[in-house]
Amino acid sequence: MTASPTTVLADLTSIRTRVDDALASFLRAKAGSGAARRLPEEVVTTLDGFLFGGGKRIRPVLCVLGWLAGGGDPEVPAPVVRAAASLELFHASVLIHDDIIDDSDTRRDRPTVHRVLTDLHRDRRDPERFGAGAAIVLGDLTMVWAAELLHTAQLAHDRLAAALAVLDSMRADVMYGQYLDLLATACPTDDLERALQIVRYKTVSYTCERPLHLGAALADAPPEVRTALTAYARPLGEAFQLRDDLLGVFGDPAHSGKSNLDDLREGKHTALVALALEHASEAEAARLRTLLGDPDLDERAAQDCREILAASARPRVEDMIAARWELAIGALRQPPYPAEVAGALRRIADAAVLRTS
Amino acid sequence: MTASPTTVLADLTSIRTRVDDALASFLRAKAGSGAARRLPEEVVTTLDGFLFGGGKRIRPVLCVLGWLAGGGDPEVPAPVVRAAASLELFHASVLIHDDIIDDSDTRRDRPTVHRVLTDLHRDRRDPERFGAGAAIVLGDLTMVWAAELLHTAQLAHDRLAAALAVLDSMRADVMYGQYLDLLATACPTDDLERALQIVRYKTVSYTCERPLHLGAALADAPPEVRTALTAYARPLGEAFQLRDDLLGVFGDPAHSGKSNLDDLREGKHTALVALALEHASEAEAARLRTLLGDPDLDERAAQDCREILAASARPRVEDMIAARWELAIGALRQPPYPAEVAGALRRIADAAVLRTS
Repeated sequence: MTASPTTVLADLTSIRTRVDDALASFLRAKAGSGAARRLPEEVVTTLDGFLFGGGKRIRPVLCVLGWLAGGGDPEVPAPVVRAAASLELFHASVLIHDDIIDDSDTRRDRPTVHRVLTDLHRDRRDPERFGAGAAIVLGDLTMVWAAELLHTAQLAHDRLAAALAVLDSMRADVMYGQYLDLLATACPTDDLERALQIVRYKTVSYTCERPLHLGAALADAPPEVRTALTAYARPLGEAFQLRDDLLGVFGDPAHSGKSNLDDLREGKHTALVALALEHASEAEAARLRTLLGDPDLDERAAQDCREILAASARPRVEDMIAARWELAIGALRQPPYPAEVAGALRRIADAAVLRTS
Repeated sequence: MTASPTTVLADLTSIRTRVDDALASFLRAKAGSGAARRLPEEVVTTLDGFLFGGGKRIRPVLCVLGWLAGGGDPEVPAPVVRAAASLELFHASVLIHDDIIDDSDTRRDRPTVHRVLTDLHRDRRDPERFGAGAAIVLGDLTMVWAAELLHTAQLAHDRLAAALAVLDSMRADVMYGQYLDLLATACPTDDLERALQIVRYKTVSYTCERPLHLGAALADAPPEVRTALTAYARPLGEAFQLRDDLLGVFGDPAHSGKSNLDDLREGKHTALVALALEHASEAEAARLRTLLGDPDLDERAAQDCREILAASARPRVEDMIAARWELAIGALRQPPYPAEVAGALRRIADAAVLRTS
């Protein structure tokens, strides 16, 4: 059986399905060996519930597209799918820890991992403390397993080494991004460059550029493919995060599955907030500074914030998104993109910019 | 210049120095690239302070001894030292998270990482929450950097792949050990097997067996070396942890640098506790159950615990340590240990069993 990129790309769902199959089979094996060694079942079942409770699999899909852009076999061999799947497992570890840090109760309309573990151990002396501690460990184990999923993907040794170099950058970048985010949270300023630095570490590199580079590295693609992928990924990643920031404040929770109060209550430092603090009237900026980061912010005060942000910054952020979308789309018109791969990347860019969740 | 194993082993300090040099040079490079990218300096300085604030470097030393046992070059090439050093960096990540989980204020007589970060950000709205969150991220970054230190050690690709297989087991084992420990903490029982299962995951595999196997894998040693190392490492690891459990209750904080109340207050499930609950009188066992895990346990009640534990279990644990020390030493008398390597491993076994800190 042969496949053209067209077949693979006509339906990105088939890639997602293969990624999910790789994840499920890895976790099944872990459940089996854990049971044989009388290890606690809840470790795998909790992770399984979290992993298959949702998620767009955007990083694995981009990894496979990077593989195809780099001239990889359109059939997408199993080791490449497994490597792509390892990105999703790593991402799960990041989210598990992120939810502890933010003390979030839900993600994707389901209880977060530390809440699940807390509920499972309600009869303990201090179930909240147990839940948080156990989730730190489960997040660590998930990170370790993500690496194992890649190491055991049966990649050629030189491809594995190339993949590890890309992942070392990606993983350090997202951690620095998280750290920058923590530092800036609850300290809103008009520093747009600072907001964009967080985006570059937390989203651009982690969600777009490195997953694409990983695929290209697996295909042993020449350096110009990597450069071309970067030209697409950087503006796309920024557009993606800027859209996310807007949804975090103006989004409809019924569609997005997440609160539109949390970012305001945390006082998340975003481009939206930086631009508002720069362009709003002095009185409005002062009001915004008072409200942002108030953990008890109510819906009425949140509406005040939204009005100030909408008037002073929202159109500017929409312009930034549009400009970045143009750049990303423009990059796809250059070689060396096969037409079908460019088409799929274009659809992803459209979805990232137009999405409502 | 040539070196015999004797030269290297006469002074294990020289191995520790080379490991520390590898760690320092890695962190210096991270500080440099971080500064160039305007990343927060405190990330590297905090990790540096923690890493060089203490630690016996037992895992890197065992890795180098595994290398020598496997017939590796007595000069110990730089890539092997770097791989050994990566174990210490991984260990730092485990300790950083462990201290958050246990809410510990100090380690090695110095403030824990989340306390350092809390103090650094005293002027924030919620410095404790910031410190814990930032330390979760810093622990994650440390784990990522530990992997990078190995990946960039300039190992041959097939040796890197062999090393990763050992590390995948080791890292998952310690996480399962942490999880088992959390589950059992504050729920003391007379289940000795359960206590020893925790030891096998948390200490035997992680502290002794896998570091030795890593060195052997780097040397491409035949399977019988691995088997021989296991015969030594398993009883040694148990003896090491059993001694640790005794020190945690009966140790002199002035010598050990750690509290002799914490294990009792946490209600840590150890072989010592399991044996006491099995062999003490009903009244004493009941008293122990009441006291263990009481976070407000005072020195007088702790003294009660110590007396019950000393009478009903301490000699039994000392017997277990002696039996395991015998087994470990006996294993060293078999081939394929070069005499000098066996001598060094013997000194480590003696130190593990006789130590007071």
